[in-house]
Amino acid sequence: MPELAYLNGEILPIEKACIPIEDRGYQFGDAVYEFIASYNEKLFCLEQHLDRLERSMQGLSLPKIPREDIRAAVMTLFEKAGIARAGIYMQISRGVSPRNHPFPESAKPQFVMTIRPVEEKPPELRLTGSTAITVEDYRWGRCDLKTVQLLPNVLAKQKAQEAEAFDAIFVSPEGVVREGTSSNVFVVAGGRLMTHPLTPQILPGITRAVVIELGRSIDLPVEERFFNVDDLLSAEEAFFTGTVTEVLPIVTVDRKHIGEGRVGSITSCLYDALRQQAGA
Amino acid sequence: MPELAYLNGEILPIEKACIPIEDRGYQFGDAVYEFIASYNEKLFCLEQHLDRLERSMQGLSLPKIPREDIRAAVMTLFEKAGIARAGIYMQISRGVSPRNHPFPESAKPQFVMTIRPVEEKPPELRLTGSTAITVEDYRWGRCDLKTVQLLPNVLAKQKAQEAEAFDAIFVSPEGVVREGTSSNVFVVAGGRLMTHPLTPQILPGITRAVVIELGRSIDLPVEERFFNVDDLLSAEEAFFTGTVTEVLPIVTVDRKHIGEGRVGSITSCLYDALRQQAGA
Repeated sequence: MPELAYLNGEILPIEKACIPIEDRGYQFGDAVYEFIASYNEKLFCLEQHLDRLERSMQGLSLPKIPREDIRAAVMTLFEKAGIARAGIYMQISRGVSPRNHPFPESAKPQFVMTIRPVEEKPPELRLTGSTAITVEDYRWGRCDLKTVQLLPNVLAKQKAQEAEAFDAIFVSPEGVVREGTSSNVFVVAGGRLMTHPLTPQILPGITRAVVIELGRSIDLPVEERFFNVDDLLSAEEAFFTGTVTEVLPIVTVDRKHIGEGRVGSITSCLYDALRQQAGA
Repeated sequence: MPELAYLNGEILPIEKACIPIEDRGYQFGDAVYEFIASYNEKLFCLEQHLDRLERSMQGLSLPKIPREDIRAAVMTLFEKAGIARAGIYMQISRGVSPRNHPFPESAKPQFVMTIRPVEEKPPELRLTGSTAITVEDYRWGRCDLKTVQLLPNVLAKQKAQEAEAFDAIFVSPEGVVREGTSSNVFVVAGGRLMTHPLTPQILPGITRAVVIELGRSIDLPVEERFFNVDDLLSAEEAFFTGTVTEVLPIVTVDRKHIGEGRVGSITSCLYDALRQQAGA
């Protein structure tokens, strides 16, 4: 099960994969990315990830790369690595050009990937649930595009870790609960599932969409609507969703219990349903 | 006059300078930068740039690099290139580590630079003045740190170019004029100089500080205060400041003239004073 990198068509060891320092991804964060996971040798929601990648690329007016070329590259790397439970990180930048803000006329997008076994969340975290802190959302205004403008996410995650919490939840200046540093946030309140609607302020999560469908399939009313920190704190259950996070219970926020401070039954049910759908 | 790169102590041709794809600068924008220019073989405001670099690094809790080491590296590259009117781009990232949001425990910061002749603004732009459009400021909340979170700047500059304007000016949702995509903005109104105060929303420009001092030295009252788009449009003069921009007149904004729509006398005077101080 080798860990491998992909660099513009070439497959090589990760530590040998290098990009020029004038890659615009490095100097401007002018790049988009995706992270795709496999279960039992099958990539989960590959087409949805490719849809979102295309959308992000359009949002940045990146030159179009044929979808079949991207898919073929992903599959080649995936098959070559032979990792049953793999995580594929893919990043496409605008290309290499002497540093200058406007789009360069002739740069060629750089397409890089890495593949590794998925680092599973610790089982005890799934059993006892995760903890979170809230932080003010001071990210840029296009968090719906999956770009590498991730420094505020890095700083918020680090702050959470220093507070001995699992993650940070971004909250708008008005108190609206947005999302985690690499996941969406759901609450269960009054027997309904609620999550932030799709706006430029949050990522349109693939797992978020799957969980909404799963909720509806078990006759759980789902509302995509704004809710604030008080709603979160008074919820019956809360959880993160994400490709690696899957469905992860949140049991305390800012050291206050959500519900009874333990993993809720609806959360568990959705986790099981997600794993089943993914073929875990 | 060779164009050169610096890569963690090594000097090499720019196109040969590469960094691993798991550099956090590439995957998270977890990096700071500076741009320093020389005039007649002398770097202008080197210490001020090093001050700001230290401040940005502290803002990201990057491991400290001794200032004398950074200065020595800059000087070595500068002397080796032998470019009298040089632009040195320097970038320091948190280092290389398998992708994971929190700070890695053992990564070593990556320190890269390029040196090239400064690309001067076209003389006709200085003679007739530049044009600008306004765009909503949707950047992240720590624009006072000089980081590579620059995608909104790239997109705004591109938008300006497509509108046949020189640059875009970021305006807050409340209408406050903040700064350009790589420069600060000043107006002359009622015989006073005004510019946005130092807040987390703008870069503490080195040229901005020099121009404030120069203004005061010629008995021009200077106010660091908020002003809005109407104030800008009704100003007598307006200009951008920046390391390469120097003092660049703005004669129209959103296709409306500033003052009489030509380069103002105070702007010209400050440009000359800046060039003189820089030893141009």
